[in-house]
Amino acid sequence: MELKEKVLSMAKEAKAASQILAVAKTDAKNKALAEIAKGLKENMSALLEANAKDVAYAREKGLSKALIDRLTLTEARIEGMIHNLHEVISLPDPVGSIVKMWQRPNGLKVGRMRIPLGVIAMVYEARPDATVEAAALCLKAGNSVILRGGSEAINSNLCLGEIMTKALITAGLPEKAIQVVPITDRKVVLELLKLEGVIDLIIPRGGEGLIRFVTENSKIPVLKHYKGVCHVYVDDKADLKMAEEICFNAKVQRPGVCNAMETMLVHEAVAKSFLPVMLKRFVEAGVEIRGCEKTCQIFPQARPATEADWPAEYLDLILAVKIVANMDEAIEHIAKYGSNHTETIITEDYSRAWRFLEKVDASVVLVNASTRFNDGNQLGLGSEIGISTSKLHAYGPMGLEELTTTKFIVFGQGQIRT
Amino acid sequence: MELKEKVLSMAKEAKAASQILAVAKTDAKNKALAEIAKGLKENMSALLEANAKDVAYAREKGLSKALIDRLTLTEARIEGMIHNLHEVISLPDPVGSIVKMWQRPNGLKVGRMRIPLGVIAMVYEARPDATVEAAALCLKAGNSVILRGGSEAINSNLCLGEIMTKALITAGLPEKAIQVVPITDRKVVLELLKLEGVIDLIIPRGGEGLIRFVTENSKIPVLKHYKGVCHVYVDDKADLKMAEEICFNAKVQRPGVCNAMETMLVHEAVAKSFLPVMLKRFVEAGVEIRGCEKTCQIFPQARPATEADWPAEYLDLILAVKIVANMDEAIEHIAKYGSNHTETIITEDYSRAWRFLEKVDASVVLVNASTRFNDGNQLGLGSEIGISTSKLHAYGPMGLEELTTTKFIVFGQGQIRT
Repeated sequence: MELKEKVLSMAKEAKAASQILAVAKTDAKNKALAEIAKGLKENMSALLEANAKDVAYAREKGLSKALIDRLTLTEARIEGMIHNLHEVISLPDPVGSIVKMWQRPNGLKVGRMRIPLGVIAMVYEARPDATVEAAALCLKAGNSVILRGGSEAINSNLCLGEIMTKALITAGLPEKAIQVVPITDRKVVLELLKLEGVIDLIIPRGGEGLIRFVTENSKIPVLKHYKGVCHVYVDDKADLKMAEEICFNAKVQRPGVCNAMETMLVHEAVAKSFLPVMLKRFVEAGVEIRGCEKTCQIFPQARPATEADWPAEYLDLILAVKIVANMDEAIEHIAKYGSNHTETIITEDYSRAWRFLEKVDASVVLVNASTRFNDGNQLGLGSEIGISTSKLHAYGPMGLEELTTTKFIVFGQGQIRT
Repeated sequence: MELKEKVLSMAKEAKAASQILAVAKTDAKNKALAEIAKGLKENMSALLEANAKDVAYAREKGLSKALIDRLTLTEARIEGMIHNLHEVISLPDPVGSIVKMWQRPNGLKVGRMRIPLGVIAMVYEARPDATVEAAALCLKAGNSVILRGGSEAINSNLCLGEIMTKALITAGLPEKAIQVVPITDRKVVLELLKLEGVIDLIIPRGGEGLIRFVTENSKIPVLKHYKGVCHVYVDDKADLKMAEEICFNAKVQRPGVCNAMETMLVHEAVAKSFLPVMLKRFVEAGVEIRGCEKTCQIFPQARPATEADWPAEYLDLILAVKIVANMDEAIEHIAKYGSNHTETIITEDYSRAWRFLEKVDASVVLVNASTRFNDGNQLGLGSEIGISTSKLHAYGPMGLEELTTTKFIVFGQGQIRT
């Protein structure tokens, strides 16, 4: 069979499975998730062996240390995957819940019932833990999923695929509800992106290049974020000690992730009191400072920022710092250079807090809290399959509910339209 | 300026306007809507004159009677448009409302606030009433709109565009928030569809050909329905008198619309008692019956249906009729030939009613009510900009809320992530 036909056939099997899964009971879905957890435990050595092959090959190919780290499975990481599966089991099933119900003047009772989206294709990097995480969330929300992870993880992913297929069968659910693409050829992705009407949603996760490629070539709706250029604006009405703790956390706690702060904006009235202390602490933590002209005057250790620094997503211990005349300048800067991801204001001023919340266009806007909270788990969605910075369907972290839609249900007593 | 540049420049102006409109007060938006209504009243003769030009040209071009009817404005129709504007004024403003709010264990208060989508492009047929309807809904939901109606309506639409621009200025809102594309060249549509990142959503309305063209060429999310192949299933546990009234209403009350019934499915146990009466009534109302083999045996006046009849959207006084062995066969038929638009069951059986509601995949599923209720106004959304049969973002009629999204807002007291 040709590649094109193979991909189409996988997608059609996923579609057929999704129709059964859509009306599956929560108990059956939870049973499958528990069986996956059990399978991971029982097949740990086989899984580590498959992963070792992938890692050896990745080393041969000269992959970066960071990529190899993400690819590598350990006993502890597999235990983490098992733990996450049990968390998904404990989350409420969104499918079938009726989110609203109202009555019309003619007596019709109208409601909106949550239903799955159908078939989701995940295109992501070589991270075997993401394979199970994505599969678990799609399954719980009643969707079939086609998993196309980075080719470097192929042996790990195929092993995980087998474990998940067995779990589905044991739980009496369609085995094609979770499918790992067994082909490493990159053309697979292009073929997946053409299947409008069979696949309902594409979720790409990974570098900006991959995400642009998927968006530009897809005939199917795509939920994604390109990058996270997140700001913290320190207002002159801020509690400066609080500002210091939040900014430090936002930059340093985990610099390599999309919700880390990349640029700090500081009101000029507090720049002289705030920046020397704050930036010294950053430098001691190994953060390189790239400052605007005024910042460099106050803190000469800073390297002068260039235009390229303002839209930069460093994902590293580097921070751009800019002094602004007021909150409006901060909001304008964010509108120009931000990525609609996560924006924070630190202020004790009531009106400014609300104005910032309302005016700033980002998937998560915070007052007096770290940008690092833009995360489905941290915000209380349970678990997330990704963060969307596109506004259609979902804006922000996507949990189980965001993997569903609603249909209208109408209870009549013979009503006709006049 | 070249066409491409003109379209891009319109879209960028729409984007800039949308940022101001996004935080505009409800009062200002309602004022603009009231000013449009006033403008329609005051410029009625100019509008009728512009429309007469369009109609004369359409006649010359030999457009069908149905198309000319949709294109034609009368005083009564303009009064209808004015009435609709006042209805939109009376609807609650979705923007800024906080739809949920919860607290995290660390004290963070997390909510979801409704915000506009941004810039919406409408691509639709030559219907001047749709121009004002779409503009009103987009404006109330805080979105800029670019209106690209069928070229035959260009004089009417330009006249309406002027009235709406003046209304925006009077209300102190950005005049580029509503723009009528002044170019009739069809290439405009292709250019609009490329502007990912500037235009946020495309809504095509019209024939299946137009909608397929838009979907296939768009880089921007599209909300649409291709067609409405709607079924009524008459169960053997139905109240047959109720079934008769509903089926008659669903087919005959307005056969040319997407939520009219196209196929009637009848349980074999009641076919002999139900069909002769029902089909006689249809025939008397001028409906042509295309029946399955068994239907033709019971009602010899029926013309034998062919395979082409089952997926057909007649939009006319034609009805396909099929006798099924049970509800499961009806559900399978709907899954195979339906268009995810509107599906109704007539039954007094409690379990079957729920099973039909849960298993049938359509944007609106009804029990004991006419398919004709799939309409934003009828279901209580106030007014609608269209019906979506795609599941992403909106499934079913799209009112003001469906023209918005939500962002997360977070109120902290200094929380950092540990």
